[in-house]
Amino acid sequence: MSKVLVFGHQNPDTDTITSALVYAHLKQQLGADVEAVRLGEVNNETAFALEKFGFEAPRLVEGVEAGAEVILVDHNEFQQSAKGIEEARVLEVIDHHRIANFQTSDPLYFRAEPVGCTATILNKLYKENGVEVPANIAGLMLSAIVSDTLLFKSPTCTDQDVQAGEELAKIAGVDAAEYGLAMLKAGADLSDKSLEDLLSLDAKGFEFGAYKATVAQVNAVDIEDVLGRQEELVALLTKDVADNNLDLFFFVVTDILNNDSTAVAVGAQAEAAAKAFGAEIVDGRIALPGVVSRKKQIVPVLTDGLK
Amino acid sequence: MSKVLVFGHQNPDTDTITSALVYAHLKQQLGADVEAVRLGEVNNETAFALEKFGFEAPRLVEGVEAGAEVILVDHNEFQQSAKGIEEARVLEVIDHHRIANFQTSDPLYFRAEPVGCTATILNKLYKENGVEVPANIAGLMLSAIVSDTLLFKSPTCTDQDVQAGEELAKIAGVDAAEYGLAMLKAGADLSDKSLEDLLSLDAKGFEFGAYKATVAQVNAVDIEDVLGRQEELVALLTKDVADNNLDLFFFVVTDILNNDSTAVAVGAQAEAAAKAFGAEIVDGRIALPGVVSRKKQIVPVLTDGLK
Repeated sequence: MSKVLVFGHQNPDTDTITSALVYAHLKQQLGADVEAVRLGEVNNETAFALEKFGFEAPRLVEGVEAGAEVILVDHNEFQQSAKGIEEARVLEVIDHHRIANFQTSDPLYFRAEPVGCTATILNKLYKENGVEVPANIAGLMLSAIVSDTLLFKSPTCTDQDVQAGEELAKIAGVDAAEYGLAMLKAGADLSDKSLEDLLSLDAKGFEFGAYKATVAQVNAVDIEDVLGRQEELVALLTKDVADNNLDLFFFVVTDILNNDSTAVAVGAQAEAAAKAFGAEIVDGRIALPGVVSRKKQIVPVLTDGLK
Repeated sequence: MSKVLVFGHQNPDTDTITSALVYAHLKQQLGADVEAVRLGEVNNETAFALEKFGFEAPRLVEGVEAGAEVILVDHNEFQQSAKGIEEARVLEVIDHHRIANFQTSDPLYFRAEPVGCTATILNKLYKENGVEVPANIAGLMLSAIVSDTLLFKSPTCTDQDVQAGEELAKIAGVDAAEYGLAMLKAGADLSDKSLEDLLSLDAKGFEFGAYKATVAQVNAVDIEDVLGRQEELVALLTKDVADNNLDLFFFVVTDILNNDSTAVAVGAQAEAAAKAFGAEIVDGRIALPGVVSRKKQIVPVLTDGLK
């Protein structure tokens, strides 16, 4: 019997990579034969967190084999998961997203909670199973919470995330605010990134009604680092829309200091997407004041607006 | 704001009815404004349990309104749920079935575990939330576990179900084996049922690949109580298949004393269904030795066999 693979979504972010490592640790403590793996490159922010707490990135896999036993963390929608997931056996899911395009033929352990971060749920699972959280594992969970909640400022952030963050910072022996800002800035450093890189860094596929869309998000300290190259960006998005037969590519740049976003939308549903936010496309941009959360402030709006 | 409705599946069984009552109780203890309701008639077995522990059946509802806030127990597939569920807001799901044909636009609390009964999960939730289980609520949960596991004999029954059952019997102040058998026998008393009643008593809709199917199950002490009227039964199933455009009606009679089942299948996929079990249709019947669980021994086989 091969090991059970634990992994998060494609184009992995900090919550996805660390949650795979953390949940694999917990399952191992409970006697399971599991391995954390990843479906894509580790971004700068995650690399910063892994280095800080002394972890290597999990092994990269291309897809999963038919019949393989897997545990999904930080996602459930099959189009965001590993190649071949439809033919795998999903044993467990630990997630904090909407549920869609997911199905199994057998009962499973599925634990989703409407909190800001998968790590907040994992922290509970350590307690429920009576397993102590080591300092370096606490550091990974704290990193995930800081990343997903933009240092507790996102509207997705719940009291449970704040409490878990405080608890975990203590165990990890770091100052959450200081460490967190350093980590976010490492992630928002786009100087070594091409526009192609930015397109896939944190892109997720969605189906909104009959429409096929990609919603990508990048964090920046200065949004002009990205949008200064708008013409080139639109050309790349247009190509991606054509290549992948999309109805919409919704590319969001989030200002992590001011907690606002600006989007560039391409595809037949671009106007409709702007309208869904009660906004207009001005100079090719859609202003999204106060919007920082794809999950809570973007996906539900597009789901309703494009159906 | 109207109350949040808590309900189980159509053609309710004991786990569905009692789980709605029990989870509504827990949520009320936690300060939520919720009401348990039901989507269909209460069967004889459930009526026996409700009377034993002093409960009225929950209010019957036809469907839910657009935007209504709901909590689903003991199911997640929309075709097994309330009319209008697609337009409702599902806040939570507590379930122990496979996940399919379920989706939301927002994150939610979704707790599914591969155990024999929803009540086993609810018993944990009382503990996790630090709420004491009253004796009558314990009686309802015990009834659900006995029903879903056929007195701990079904292959769906896990150690967790056995442990919860023992714990709850103690709190409820009853002997699990003695009370359980009396309850199962009350449910298997088919003397006041027409064949039409039996068809819908515990029927659930499924999609197996491209095929639309209904899988119904009735418990009996003597299967000839039902199959003695086989010709009439086949005529009814045939009409149901035509009326509802089904590819398969798979009607299962389970012998609760010997823990075997016999099925009658009607529709274009009837032969394929028998073949999925490595069986043949003999005198219009498919023998299913050792099969008692729709979830674990029937649905997965049909899912694989008809895809």
